[in-house]
Amino acid sequence: MSLSAGSSPLHSPKITPHTSPAPRRRSHTPNPANYMVPSSASTSVSNPVSQTPSSGQVIQKETVGGTTYFYTDTTPAPLTGMRSFKNYHRTACRTEGQIIEVFPNYHIYPPTAPHVAYMQPKANAPSFFMADELRQDMDLRVLQLVAADRIDGIHGFRLVNTKCMVLVDMWKKIQHSNIVTLREVFTTKAFAEPSLVFAYDFHAGGETMMSRHFNDPNADAYFTKRKWGQHDGPLPRQHAGLLPESLIWAYIVQLSSALRTIHTAGLACRVMDPTKILITGKTRLRVNCVGVFDVLTFDNSQNNNPLALMAQYQCQCIKFVPTKKKLKVIFILSCQQADLISLGKVVLALACNSLAGIQRENLQKAMELVTINYSSDLKNLILYLLTDQNRMRSVNDIMPMIGARFYTQLDAAQMRNDVIEEDLAKEVQNGRLFRLLAKLGTINERPEFQKDPTWSETGDRYLLKLFRDHLFHQVTEAGAPWIDLSHIISCLNKLDAGVPEKISLISRDEKSVLVVTYSDLKRCFENTFQELIAAANGQL
Amino acid sequence: MSLSAGSSPLHSPKITPHTSPAPRRRSHTPNPANYMVPSSASTSVSNPVSQTPSSGQVIQKETVGGTTYFYTDTTPAPLTGMRSFKNYHRTACRTEGQIIEVFPNYHIYPPTAPHVAYMQPKANAPSFFMADELRQDMDLRVLQLVAADRIDGIHGFRLVNTKCMVLVDMWKKIQHSNIVTLREVFTTKAFAEPSLVFAYDFHAGGETMMSRHFNDPNADAYFTKRKWGQHDGPLPRQHAGLLPESLIWAYIVQLSSALRTIHTAGLACRVMDPTKILITGKTRLRVNCVGVFDVLTFDNSQNNNPLALMAQYQCQCIKFVPTKKKLKVIFILSCQQADLISLGKVVLALACNSLAGIQRENLQKAMELVTINYSSDLKNLILYLLTDQNRMRSVNDIMPMIGARFYTQLDAAQMRNDVIEEDLAKEVQNGRLFRLLAKLGTINERPEFQKDPTWSETGDRYLLKLFRDHLFHQVTEAGAPWIDLSHIISCLNKLDAGVPEKISLISRDEKSVLVVTYSDLKRCFENTFQELIAAANGQL
Repeated sequence: MSLSAGSSPLHSPKITPHTSPAPRRRSHTPNPANYMVPSSASTSVSNPVSQTPSSGQVIQKETVGGTTYFYTDTTPAPLTGMRSFKNYHRTACRTEGQIIEVFPNYHIYPPTAPHVAYMQPKANAPSFFMADELRQDMDLRVLQLVAADRIDGIHGFRLVNTKCMVLVDMWKKIQHSNIVTLREVFTTKAFAEPSLVFAYDFHAGGETMMSRHFNDPNADAYFTKRKWGQHDGPLPRQHAGLLPESLIWAYIVQLSSALRTIHTAGLACRVMDPTKILITGKTRLRVNCVGVFDVLTFDNSQNNNPLALMAQYQCQCIKFVPTKKKLKVIFILSCQQADLISLGKVVLALACNSLAGIQRENLQKAMELVTINYSSDLKNLILYLLTDQNRMRSVNDIMPMIGARFYTQLDAAQMRNDVIEEDLAKEVQNGRLFRLLAKLGTINERPEFQKDPTWSETGDRYLLKLFRDHLFHQVTEAGAPWIDLSHIISCLNKLDAGVPEKISLISRDEKSVLVVTYSDLKRCFENTFQELIAAANGQL
Repeated sequence: MSLSAGSSPLHSPKITPHTSPAPRRRSHTPNPANYMVPSSASTSVSNPVSQTPSSGQVIQKETVGGTTYFYTDTTPAPLTGMRSFKNYHRTACRTEGQIIEVFPNYHIYPPTAPHVAYMQPKANAPSFFMADELRQDMDLRVLQLVAADRIDGIHGFRLVNTKCMVLVDMWKKIQHSNIVTLREVFTTKAFAEPSLVFAYDFHAGGETMMSRHFNDPNADAYFTKRKWGQHDGPLPRQHAGLLPESLIWAYIVQLSSALRTIHTAGLACRVMDPTKILITGKTRLRVNCVGVFDVLTFDNSQNNNPLALMAQYQCQCIKFVPTKKKLKVIFILSCQQADLISLGKVVLALACNSLAGIQRENLQKAMELVTINYSSDLKNLILYLLTDQNRMRSVNDIMPMIGARFYTQLDAAQMRNDVIEEDLAKEVQNGRLFRLLAKLGTINERPEFQKDPTWSETGDRYLLKLFRDHLFHQVTEAGAPWIDLSHIISCLNKLDAGVPEKISLISRDEKSVLVVTYSDLKRCFENTFQELIAAANGQL
């Protein structure tokens, strides 16, 4: 409900009684008119059934304080089996500090934003997480920390030439959403052998492209199994043995984005390989282990053999004058060319859904598979990257082949932003409510204050004790416990906002009734907690 | 700390004593060896000072259960004045359900992921929200709901021809992260005059491009103020009167993305105007009010005057045979051409930071301003959109001018995803902790159970009462209250995980000590709450 308030949670039919009890022992609102909420609010608790979301849209109007509001029921149908707690927080609100002075101090309960609630996965777009998956993903990340070794160590290695640290420093400056950042490289004797240690950002929940996509030995069957006297088996197809093209483009955009950043910085990736590409979530890629080869092969013969490199990579644009600086430039350039060939291999392997497809003897068959199953853009991209070029390849040249797919990727990323932001907007209320309960816990039933003369049957702390009963210990007319998390949340929100609404707090012996406003209670609460802090600091 | 546990919060020096008290009345862990945490955990409470984050990185190693962990202090230096609560939740963890059976049941406290903690705003990228801004933004959204009118109404209007509803249905299917989705169009007599109502998704926190960028009358000065006998004043520059080019491109990418989706669907936008473009957050755009003109002008003369339209928009590619269907196609095509001209005007106005720049008499001066201050890509894009073309314009033609800036936008969107996900991962623990405290509240000090014979000095509920004291009512040796939110969170997490660690619960008279494991307490807690629920359902 877009403008509802205090509605019962949708997913606690076992906890919330279908009709609200008229709490026998405790309290009701003596002056509800003081508390401005849309009229649906006051009925929602007493008739939670009416809150059941319908799949259609019902536009209703409502007059509150002279203003007419139109609202639609934008609550999506609940997913069965979903955790219910988040839904309680539709009823949470935030009204603190000076906000109270500027805005009306009644509660507005943010619904799920309609552009998120109605969001449909697009046919052609890489999918993003829905709430449950996101939660699982976050759990997984925490759990992975248990076994995480954040540091890759190369043992039995002595770093002779420290000039490579210039490259390490360049790598440490690379910050990109598709590259795992290198933080430190150092040597240590902490292990049995002298070791070189590379420290990278840890991305919990990540798995390699190798394990995600190239782990099924049957996937190679098209290339490896041939029966005597028979042609190949049925051709694999997209969604039937082959990956959807949209996923492959999502990967291409990210990998080319990483390469572009690396090449622009004057570096080469050198680890564009399925075993070094991390996938987190559904489609997010990060190139890992960057810089390792720059350190390991810095003094190695490759570096000193530019002629061979130039023959291999056709760096014809560079006039060969073997100064040391030029050697370095040629080396980096040739590695960049190798990066683009590696990218082509990764893309071809993805398109064949098999590493066998990039073996030399299978290349023709692999390209046939691509031609039959995928767009000409994808085929041309692979051909551009894998076949001999008369000029140097550049990652910039593949942008026109990606074309409008950039828009698709950006739309997907922005929609995912909307989904996560929406989740965050709900969850962010929980911290505030938790703090309130924790503070109340430190105040109530505190043994050392029971001897305090100011702890009387009329003092601030007594009111808070009765409020605690009001919050947690409601009973039905029949005397059964009445447990409703939405009641607890609603009362805590009113306390936090210090609204002028009045409540009757009834003593345990039912002989006295204290009528106070939430605003009074808030003052008691804050004063008492401040006193407690003062006592803790030895100021009392 | 990447693998620390139970550390004190960083921001509560007033609350956390500098040395931990040896709680006089209550308890300590009799068998800490049972509780597998990295050794830093047990020292962290007793010496919170050692937890002070340093700005440098300290790599440490630690052996836990035979495995050596390396970890770096990845905690960024705290921002002064930031709200402290979130930092407590570095210490929160999640170990529920069957996860416990598979993984070791000690607690791992997720730190801020390093790729987020160290994230630096990029010089050339549109900025994304930092945590505090995001929180403010969310507060603002809730508050805006107070005054939100989700529906635009056009009064004094009678819908004569309902054929336009075909277009409305097409609009309702458009789902794009840069378009405000049209949900419903209907007529109503609820107002004084018959009215047509357009219902759109509501995006709280949005403001129009008009109010964000074109609200300053001084900005027009370059075009409007000329002193007698003088040349113009000093030319405005980027960041000095003019917008940064990266922001303009961020807008171009989003607006062209919206137009591309609309045009591909066979529709025209017709509302590409600063008053109809919503901005949420720093840079997110959404085109609003789509479909309004399709309904309002459906029967209007424009629609029946394709010759004039063709002359105006040079739709030379369509042979003119005036069938009704072709008329409609020509009309849409001409509107699409108009969209691209409108986009050009929006971009030019942004580049001049003034709506005066797009007035015919100022065009030359405006283009000079663009040429001096911005890249040739931006100039060419404006020229392409605003000058006469020999062929029909297409939004696809501007992609090469955007070029690698797509990568920049995508990187920014993915980084923003990382930031929000990181916040969500922290906040999502709060809900679990709040539920635990709420449940404990419903159990403890429940008056009606005090008469229950099973409520004895040794029963489950008594243990939970003593645990409540352990949680909230710790005192120092001197008898002063000891209040530490990290202690509360740590104990609740252990309860939730049901770890085998033992604690001593001491009775209020200090005459008896009960040694129990958290695992026992968890069983008590769950059983008692189940009994309460059963009683609430009338099953007891």
